Amino acid sequence: MTDNNINKLCSVLTDIRKKVPLVQCITNHVTINDCANILLAYGASPAMCEAYDEVFDFVKIAQALYINLGTLNKEQEASVILAAESAKIHNIPVILDPVACAAIPRKINVINRIFQVGKVDVIKGNIGEINFLAGKSSNVKGVDSLDNSEGALDSCKILAQKYNCIVAATGENDFITDGKSSAIINNNTPMLTKITGAGCMLGALCGAAAGCSEDKFIATTSAILSMNIAAEEAFKEAKAPGSFRIKLIDYIYDLTEDKLRKGGKIIWQ
Amino acid sequence: MTDNNINKLCSVLTDIRKKVPLVQCITNHVTINDCANILLAYGASPAMCEAYDEVFDFVKIAQALYINLGTLNKEQEASVILAAESAKIHNIPVILDPVACAAIPRKINVINRIFQVGKVDVIKGNIGEINFLAGKSSNVKGVDSLDNSEGALDSCKILAQKYNCIVAATGENDFITDGKSSAIINNNTPMLTKITGAGCMLGALCGAAAGCSEDKFIATTSAILSMNIAAEEAFKEAKAPGSFRIKLIDYIYDLTEDKLRKGGKIIWQ
Amino acid sequence: MTDNNINKLCSVLTDIRKKVPLVQCITNHVTINDCANILLAYGASPAMCEAYDEVFDFVKIAQALYINLGTLNKEQEASVILAAESAKIHNIPVILDPVACAAIPRKINVINRIFQVGKVDVIKGNIGEINFLAGKSSNVKGVDSLDNSEGALDSCKILAQKYNCIVAATGENDFITDGKSSAIINNNTPMLTKITGAGCMLGALCGAAAGCSEDKFIATTSAILSMNIAAEEAFKEAKAPGSFRIKLIDYIYDLTEDKLRKGGKIIWQ
Repeated sequence: MTDNNINKLCSVLTDIRKKVPLVQCITNHVTINDCANILLAYGASPAMCEAYDEVFDFVKIAQALYINLGTLNKEQEASVILAAESAKIHNIPVILDPVACAAIPRKINVINRIFQVGKVDVIKGNIGEINFLAGKSSNVKGVDSLDNSEGALDSCKILAQKYNCIVAATGENDFITDGKSSAIINNNTPMLTKITGAGCMLGALCGAAAGCSEDKFIATTSAILSMNIAAEEAFKEAKAPGSFRIKLIDYIYDLTEDKLRKGGKIIWQ
Repeated sequence: MTDNNINKLCSVLTDIRKKVPLVQCITNHVTINDCANILLAYGASPAMCEAYDEVFDFVKIAQALYINLGTLNKEQEASVILAAESAKIHNIPVILDPVACAAIPRKINVINRIFQVGKVDVIKGNIGEINFLAGKSSNVKGVDSLDNSEGALDSCKILAQKYNCIVAATGENDFITDGKSSAIINNNTPMLTKITGAGCMLGALCGAAAGCSEDKFIATTSAILSMNIAAEEAFKEAKAPGSFRIKLIDYIYDLTEDKLRKGGKIIWQ
Repeated sequence: MTDNNINKLCSVLTDIRKKVPLVQCITNHVTINDCANILLAYGASPAMCEAYDEVFDFVKIAQALYINLGTLNKEQEASVILAAESAKIHNIPVILDPVACAAIPRKINVINRIFQVGKVDVIKGNIGEINFLAGKSSNVKGVDSLDNSEGALDSCKILAQKYNCIVAATGENDFITDGKSSAIINNNTPMLTKITGAGCMLGALCGAAAGCSEDKFIATTSAILSMNIAAEEAFKEAKAPGSFRIKLIDYIYDLTEDKLRKGGKIIWQ
């Protein structure tokens, strides 16, 4: 099973570059540029359409919808709900990034609304957010998680079963599960926490992968491993965050199946 | 005529650096930072004033108004119309970037309104957008054009005559026309399609050039050639998109009349 | 006193890295990404929460609030007032960056409202903005100041005494005062004027420093010197603005007390 999973995971990258999925993002304004650039570097086609008058129809033509709750102004909130509804009707995969849900109660209202009228295929958050959504105690500072890996996989499984979707929790280790099968990625580059938007960019990549693959568990694992491998290569060349950010995009662009295969430290459960 | 055009085109760069035009931009939030930075590197002074309460008065003091329809929330939509009206009243040159007009019907409504109450001096879009506006069939994927150069100049001329303005269509080749005289730029750096905002940044540069020159045809051609020359130099040093973006700004900053003169592959018609 | 001031100023940097202050920013969308990244590089934890429904509660958990009036849409305007009120109630230090107040009358209305319902600990602007707020004539071009250093310290003092807060005016020289004691920083890197957001990033750093230090005069001086030292180091390696921006973040990350101590050209008055 392991070899088979790795083969499938690697081929997601090639599929993205072949199919060039249109990934429609409604995302925070802090890292919106980074998300668009990393999608292009990954081989996808980004669209950052968030106007209330546009999203319902635009989601139809996309291969995936990425929803990031980072900076949710009133128009964006309405757009997010409408886009999730459109994705359900038109059967477009949805990736939800519940940014700051543990620190800001309003995010939970929006998440509940998304599940009411729409659907979600992948929830990807940091460990603090996933613990919080799973009903456990969590320790966060603004948008950042202070939780360690302990219990994270359990939280992922609780959520995956509750919402019948893929759940990923990122941190020192990354956990991905469909509720039964799981992957733990042990690659880790702490410099990722010294730039803003590493999580947002990763969510966008998950959108690209989910837009090219029926198996959302493998797709999500592939996207998360891609980010990890690129980060390791970037950090070899750049030990400070300004330069690291630039190299991260470069190495997503230069990513190959071979690098994923050789560099990945994955435990499949 | 050719030599004369090139001399005029080159002197636009020097004029920008001498006059430091204030270019007021209402532009999408994905690449707003890139637009401001490239304007500074070019020698202009950027202002990204988009609040409804501010734009009418602010346009008065600018040398050019750049309108980009990328991410048009409700307040921005109102601001765009108001700014175009102010530009007409105060005789400020307007550059319109009809981003995604072929994919999102609402953009057309906004464009029509701009022409109703305001005026436009330069329309700059990708080939798919220009084909679409010219009433031809176009092939787009979200904000990206899949059209090739065939018929692009014809589309530019149709639009230029319809709206009595300069029209530029960018892609593998770039086409600029006032409806009679035309320029075709054959410099091309495909890496420009691997970063977000190349088109937006170019639109901003067109604003700076139009703000410093009576001859908007030459000004637009000069701005587009500037982007091309800087991109060629950037690509020599940076083969991946993260680094390429940074070098692009560097080489706009380092641009000289001499580089434009020697590097430009322009056919004048 | 000088040695004592420098020691205190240097220790602010160490305090930031120890305490990792949560700096809540309501800032313009042009440079919001730069502000978040430079805060992380400095050792702080950025939060860019600006939704009207969220700010009042979010300010409570922050160590400082940075308000930047650059691109003030209607929702942001309401958020800014509400956040300032929350900061007053919960005793959170507030840094105000009165961007473009000399060019756009509406900014003054917002500033007045902030002082009515909230409070401000530090006003940091360019020299043109500070001259304008101090009731003097000022010469600005959009968001940029054309004023020189003459009379700048006097303007700072007028404002500091009027509002009973720290006032800093940045330009070729930087002036900081609490109305009585003053610091003049004579480090200067003109390339800072060739990138967008140098002022915004500096304002964010002032937030981090003010969030870690009782002495807001020293904290503000420390943040401004930090930016200057990092800029000097960045410029040694990067003579064009694209690369300079990246190196600036790198050198904020690599900043040490020793660099501040040796590199600072400060006159204490």
